[in-house]
Amino acid sequence: MAPHYAPSLWARLPAMALMLEIIFIVLFAFFVETEEFKKTKNQEFLYLYANFQDVHVIVFLGFGFMSMFLVRYGFSGTGFGLLVAAMVVQWATFINTLDKQRGVSSLHFLVNAELCAASALVAMGAVHGKTNPAQLLLLGLLEVTGLVVNQGLIKKLFKNDTFNTTMQLHVFGALFGVMTSWVLYRSEAEPRHEKEKFDSKTGLFSTLGMLLLWMFWPSINFVEAQEIRIMYSTYLSLAVSAVTAMALSVLLSPKGKINLVHVQGAALAGGVAIGAIRTVLDPWVAMVIGMCATLLSTLGFRYMKDHMLFAFECHDTCGVLSVHAIPGILGWFADLFLQLVNTDDATIAIRFAVHYICILLISVSMSLVTGTITGFLLKLKFWKPQQDRKCFDDQAFWEFPHLAVHN
Amino acid sequence: MAPHYAPSLWARLPAMALMLEIIFIVLFAFFVETEEFKKTKNQEFLYLYANFQDVHVIVFLGFGFMSMFLVRYGFSGTGFGLLVAAMVVQWATFINTLDKQRGVSSLHFLVNAELCAASALVAMGAVHGKTNPAQLLLLGLLEVTGLVVNQGLIKKLFKNDTFNTTMQLHVFGALFGVMTSWVLYRSEAEPRHEKEKFDSKTGLFSTLGMLLLWMFWPSINFVEAQEIRIMYSTYLSLAVSAVTAMALSVLLSPKGKINLVHVQGAALAGGVAIGAIRTVLDPWVAMVIGMCATLLSTLGFRYMKDHMLFAFECHDTCGVLSVHAIPGILGWFADLFLQLVNTDDATIAIRFAVHYICILLISVSMSLVTGTITGFLLKLKFWKPQQDRKCFDDQAFWEFPHLAVHN
Amino acid sequence: MAPHYAPSLWARLPAMALMLEIIFIVLFAFFVETEEFKKTKNQEFLYLYANFQDVHVIVFLGFGFMSMFLVRYGFSGTGFGLLVAAMVVQWATFINTLDKQRGVSSLHFLVNAELCAASALVAMGAVHGKTNPAQLLLLGLLEVTGLVVNQGLIKKLFKNDTFNTTMQLHVFGALFGVMTSWVLYRSEAEPRHEKEKFDSKTGLFSTLGMLLLWMFWPSINFVEAQEIRIMYSTYLSLAVSAVTAMALSVLLSPKGKINLVHVQGAALAGGVAIGAIRTVLDPWVAMVIGMCATLLSTLGFRYMKDHMLFAFECHDTCGVLSVHAIPGILGWFADLFLQLVNTDDATIAIRFAVHYICILLISVSMSLVTGTITGFLLKLKFWKPQQDRKCFDDQAFWEFPHLAVHN
Repeated sequence: MAPHYAPSLWARLPAMALMLEIIFIVLFAFFVETEEFKKTKNQEFLYLYANFQDVHVIVFLGFGFMSMFLVRYGFSGTGFGLLVAAMVVQWATFINTLDKQRGVSSLHFLVNAELCAASALVAMGAVHGKTNPAQLLLLGLLEVTGLVVNQGLIKKLFKNDTFNTTMQLHVFGALFGVMTSWVLYRSEAEPRHEKEKFDSKTGLFSTLGMLLLWMFWPSINFVEAQEIRIMYSTYLSLAVSAVTAMALSVLLSPKGKINLVHVQGAALAGGVAIGAIRTVLDPWVAMVIGMCATLLSTLGFRYMKDHMLFAFECHDTCGVLSVHAIPGILGWFADLFLQLVNTDDATIAIRFAVHYICILLISVSMSLVTGTITGFLLKLKFWKPQQDRKCFDDQAFWEFPHLAVHN
Repeated sequence: MAPHYAPSLWARLPAMALMLEIIFIVLFAFFVETEEFKKTKNQEFLYLYANFQDVHVIVFLGFGFMSMFLVRYGFSGTGFGLLVAAMVVQWATFINTLDKQRGVSSLHFLVNAELCAASALVAMGAVHGKTNPAQLLLLGLLEVTGLVVNQGLIKKLFKNDTFNTTMQLHVFGALFGVMTSWVLYRSEAEPRHEKEKFDSKTGLFSTLGMLLLWMFWPSINFVEAQEIRIMYSTYLSLAVSAVTAMALSVLLSPKGKINLVHVQGAALAGGVAIGAIRTVLDPWVAMVIGMCATLLSTLGFRYMKDHMLFAFECHDTCGVLSVHAIPGILGWFADLFLQLVNTDDATIAIRFAVHYICILLISVSMSLVTGTITGFLLKLKFWKPQQDRKCFDDQAFWEFPHLAVHN
Repeated sequence: MAPHYAPSLWARLPAMALMLEIIFIVLFAFFVETEEFKKTKNQEFLYLYANFQDVHVIVFLGFGFMSMFLVRYGFSGTGFGLLVAAMVVQWATFINTLDKQRGVSSLHFLVNAELCAASALVAMGAVHGKTNPAQLLLLGLLEVTGLVVNQGLIKKLFKNDTFNTTMQLHVFGALFGVMTSWVLYRSEAEPRHEKEKFDSKTGLFSTLGMLLLWMFWPSINFVEAQEIRIMYSTYLSLAVSAVTAMALSVLLSPKGKINLVHVQGAALAGGVAIGAIRTVLDPWVAMVIGMCATLLSTLGFRYMKDHMLFAFECHDTCGVLSVHAIPGILGWFADLFLQLVNTDDATIAIRFAVHYICILLISVSMSLVTGTITGFLLKLKFWKPQQDRKCFDDQAFWEFPHLAVHN
């Protein structure tokens, strides 16, 4: 709308996106080959195919629609989600190809690339509405690079391929995003933006996204673990999460009413926590973990989000800290605890504990450092982000041809 | 909104939901074990996995969004659907585990549990908007208990494991819900509530839910029958249903226009009817059954719903009687008819007829009795349901933080 | 609304739809049998089942919701999509059954029938909002008949079963629809109808439809080719398409903003182009083709759509020419080019070129001729289409029981 403003997107996004695409095409031409995988109808393929479709739905539909609860940010939430995920998937496919040992089939590469994209979308959740798409593209590419480097580092240091990566996906992504958002904090903007709210229609769209995530989450945990009982655990944990989230939302509300956004986030916490666990669980243990994760997540939504805004000037649009970081860390420690319980030998137990804590510390440090660096890169005047009054608003980026008409 | 009102949800829902969850966790800790099922990549698993995902989508997305046509009831329609289904699935998993012969894999248990949850959601359809979530939780748990007891009874009496359960799912659920709604009838409320209508946006959300049900319905019938031709029959029957529903909606409308809610319900009738049939069908027979089911369902929507309201003071919010009960019974008798046609021996024919009619009578009686009892339980003052003017309204239960803003 | 108007739908649609259904049932009773396909749990079946579900989602959810961007046409976009697709699927199943060699399993027939329905929905995209459902039904049936005749003709002439049919699906459908729309052009209506626009809510519904198409497009190309690398190519091509579409939409916009409808169409162009290609592609080649297809598609949206309206009086509601016809032809020539590059022998190369160009010319001529004939059939006064001021408006066909209420 503002004439001095429009050129920003015009000048940055097309040049950046097209240039990156051409670079990617050149890189793919030289470095990426499709492995032959002729046995397309065998079980290995069918299994991967089913899993791939579920992860595909989570990444491109689920995250996009869930981040759409903001009343004027629907086009951007889904559109920029698609933009970043489509770009990151190409980048992640390329990086993962460099490390040849990783997969045997091209489909396996795609599933891995999509999990990386999911991590980038988690990070994006913290800065939604305060950045333009060119900034989001850069954030996505840097986040995935950091994540892959972190995974490689841990693998090198601990000579252990079996350590869980789902935990890293959530914890790394969420902390990365929160740090970026902290650096980008706009002190001029009011503490709570007038457009940062949901209405009855955008709430329903984000319910759609949340249900897609909730339904296909067992597949995301399953793809890593390939053990049917992990899926069963995730399923039960999510069922307990959904019930607990609604009960706690009422309990913690002064008026005794349910808060839609809190419930949507907290109902997923159980799935995130189980994702960080590799030990085979009894059903009831999975249910207890789901309940604890939801409790922490709901408390985070009710109290921590505003506290962080006022105390640390850190604004977390979608509450990724409560949905992804806290349940992920809880699940990590639950896994450690279960390992310790199953171990009689004290030496092995101590070694386990050191392993787990070191991996967590390395991941957390990496995400904090890379997130902060990314924040400073994105803060450069060069990117020309939207004005404060255009935050959380599609009109900064999207044509509304018939704006005068009431909708 | 009303200050004397809010405490209701605060006082009942959290205590009830959390207590039930803790009881479930204890029950699971003592009685439920995950069977080993290591061959996760074999065909049996892949087949169940594909089926499970489709049923999952139907239960959590399809029913939730389809019940969302009410203009102010979107959050409740999907949210309480998730709450009840998540709870019922746990309860059904537990009950089904007690009868050990039922399945071999944990995934099979989940599919069974989800079909039970579908039945509870059908029952909920009749009372939507007139009950609070604590009442809905109790209704869901009692309905599933009744359904499982009924199935066990029929199995005991007729020593026959092959008798169809999909029919029971629909007929039992629908009649149970209608009876509950009849007991709960609020004579003070106007015959037709001002908020009981759809608008152009909620109509689109419910179209989404209906299409998901319509698309994945073949899988629900398939999971029981495990015969490819059942899927083919359901598919053709639903195609005929969709066309017939639209044609009949125009034909029966005085203005010659299509009624969205009628079409959405009647287009599913063909799938429900085929679900009650075990005999292998010729394609054209399936199409005829689909057409008849849609005809009865459309007539039910146009004439029976209002008639039942005025004559019997029974209000059926989503018209479950027309969508589930009538087509289910039609399919049951069609199955009997096909069996009789294929039988030469008069003795066997009579035995068949007696079997079919007894099973139907037992199921109907059980659902009427348990539904009525549930209705009286839910009518207790203890539950503090919403006031009449807050019926069919999300505001009774959900926070709308920025209510003053136009959306 | 207009009293002399309502009878139109009343008089035409029910009679036509019910009569056709009864004819179909009779035809099915005499000519269609379900082949036995007992091995329901083998890999062939599982593979087809997964594919079938994806195509099912594309046809019934994807196309329906994507054509819903028009602000007052949501019920019609999805509802008439369901009506026509359900009818066309029956008709296509019947025609395909006549040519017995086509498939071995009933599920295979259904997948083929759904691809035909997809083609009919592409054709419908050009005339949406300017026709009534009875006209759309006839258009769908004629389009599919033309398509199947065209495929049979090409097979006969070139004695070659392996030639691609996905190209025909898109190119035939789009050109057929555009010709019909050209004949149906209403010169009295303003060049741009006041209701032909999107708003923030219908835009989100069409985003949902577009994402479903985008996500499951690899499956549509895959079902024809049955080669894992085709899926991989489609996936990469679509990823490049999505990024390029957004960049080009900004670049070509005078205000530097993104146009939602252009991006939705152009992001699918890469998938359409790859669908026309049978040669095994290197990943980078697929990415280049995706980029070129998106470029042409975006230029088509920005400049050609209005040009065609003013110069040729041809109105293309959903821009199917830019989404389906142009990328399809591009892919066809790309396939020819790749074949020529791989061939050393000049004689074979010339033969290839002649083959490809002849097939394209035959398909294009057939679609233009049959589309024009269909247009003249639909222009008959007999059909009583909606008045000009009721174009692009649900109110012409759907009951809005509580119209007085603000929604």
